[in-house]
Amino acid sequence: MTNQLAVGIDLGGTNTAFGIVDKEGNILLKGTMPTTGHGTVENYIATLGANLAPLFSQVGKPNIKGIGIGAPNGNFFTGEIVFAPNLPWTGIIPLARLVAGSLSLPTTLTNDAKAAAMGEMAYGAARGMKDFIMITLGTGLGSGIVANGQMIYGHDGLAGELGHLIAVRDGRKCNCGRYGCLERYASATGIALTAELWLKENDEETVLRQYQGHVTSKKIHTAADGGDAFALRLFEYTGKILGQALADAVTITSPEAIIFFGGLAKSGRLILDPVKKHLEENLLSIYKDKIKLLQSALPDDDAAILGASALAWGNTKG
Amino acid sequence: MTNQLAVGIDLGGTNTAFGIVDKEGNILLKGTMPTTGHGTVENYIATLGANLAPLFSQVGKPNIKGIGIGAPNGNFFTGEIVFAPNLPWTGIIPLARLVAGSLSLPTTLTNDAKAAAMGEMAYGAARGMKDFIMITLGTGLGSGIVANGQMIYGHDGLAGELGHLIAVRDGRKCNCGRYGCLERYASATGIALTAELWLKENDEETVLRQYQGHVTSKKIHTAADGGDAFALRLFEYTGKILGQALADAVTITSPEAIIFFGGLAKSGRLILDPVKKHLEENLLSIYKDKIKLLQSALPDDDAAILGASALAWGNTKG
Repeated sequence: MTNQLAVGIDLGGTNTAFGIVDKEGNILLKGTMPTTGHGTVENYIATLGANLAPLFSQVGKPNIKGIGIGAPNGNFFTGEIVFAPNLPWTGIIPLARLVAGSLSLPTTLTNDAKAAAMGEMAYGAARGMKDFIMITLGTGLGSGIVANGQMIYGHDGLAGELGHLIAVRDGRKCNCGRYGCLERYASATGIALTAELWLKENDEETVLRQYQGHVTSKKIHTAADGGDAFALRLFEYTGKILGQALADAVTITSPEAIIFFGGLAKSGRLILDPVKKHLEENLLSIYKDKIKLLQSALPDDDAAILGASALAWGNTKG
Repeated sequence: MTNQLAVGIDLGGTNTAFGIVDKEGNILLKGTMPTTGHGTVENYIATLGANLAPLFSQVGKPNIKGIGIGAPNGNFFTGEIVFAPNLPWTGIIPLARLVAGSLSLPTTLTNDAKAAAMGEMAYGAARGMKDFIMITLGTGLGSGIVANGQMIYGHDGLAGELGHLIAVRDGRKCNCGRYGCLERYASATGIALTAELWLKENDEETVLRQYQGHVTSKKIHTAADGGDAFALRLFEYTGKILGQALADAVTITSPEAIIFFGGLAKSGRLILDPVKKHLEENLLSIYKDKIKLLQSALPDDDAAILGASALAWGNTKG
């Protein structure tokens, strides 16, 4: 009965969510606390420990195998958070080591998208798969690439940044300093940016015009659901850019499936149909009609906790 | 002393080269025979067996662990050669099974570029590396991608076709039926094609003009060595296209090194310097100044036998 539970911690810019998870992906207990307002990272960890203590008592701490943390800019190899712009601590934070020391449990850390991939593999749409690509479509485009049943971390722990494939040579300026990165087109932010650019370009009638200056991917979804031609073209265009880029990714790892999660992925067939169409059109013939496009099978609210917890079940580095 | 030797077979369109290799990558015995002229694949294998028999006698067959075959369009998972346009047998050939049955040794097969990657990992420039990309620049551009110490075969055994990344959207027509594939620019064939197109476009003076209609990558190399500005620009352009595409590949697998082999790779710094420059210019900052660009460390004539033999040491699929 020992070592049958894992702790999953989702460290976000605003809140930290945590839960105790069993091997089937059931969250037995969970809670949340603010990420900010603690001053030092040591104080943050002390508060986290105080929040986890009653959960540990309830399930019996000896039953817990370890802790997994999903965090922005998290590096699996070093256990560090590296210059995360949206977290209250600057520089390089050796979070896994600090948490392991404070809570006396083996602690593993990775970035949000890789944690999501681990969650899908452990409990979700990728159960039983050895080769798949996880795509998270939120503020940016995150990814986790699994080959031979193992996460591809690369030489430095930093592999799998599909959001920074160059989708459009000399295209839109990206926060990374380069031009044309995929996530500037294919993400909740990207599709909204396309909408704003198109609204400026011409006077086409669209229900989105009333939101000019603050269009969101959700508003585009609602408009498209209502049959707005402009909104539908936004999905078509976004799906085209994403499908073309994913065709290149397929050429590299030949996955069984590509699994989508996050704000823009919630638009379901509105986004996945054009992605599928343009992916297939751009695939080398040997890959055609083979690759499943799936939505995440994890519940929205708990996906990040589940993904983080999956890290605790085992080190996937060979 | 048993199981200390491997057979490597390099199945080419014209000739089949074979050798007996030890764990350090020394070729103890080797030979060659024509690939064509045998009629059925069964007859080909019978002749191959007759050629190998005296080698087996010399080293003692019980000392041989297995046979590795590198072949065009070879699929590691199925052991089949699948519709290889330059081989004398059509359709799907279950070569690994036929050879294993005929020669009574475990037999593994993969394509040429993946065999080259296995060879570099076992005996060459990638010894000790767990994450690298092998690029062969010959008639086409072949690749083998290793992550976590394992070849990425993908769901279907067909991963790692970097030659068919779309390098130039709506670019040159490729034999695969699509447009703008990397190998139409970055290969011995690709650089020669660029030369022919440029020669037609203008009247610039270049020593290559005398070869118009039959320019080769070797002639371009010789011209560039002699300081021909046109030839040097051909390397710069080819290196730019290749460096840009490899920057995307790095974003996916974050390798320790990229290793180059094949006709065009023999041009050394002429091609690798522009590749390095444009790779670095196009990398996300987290990957900059980290990735070694290396030439193959295997002797040209024996590299294919060595690569194939490396397959016999172990199944790299987890």
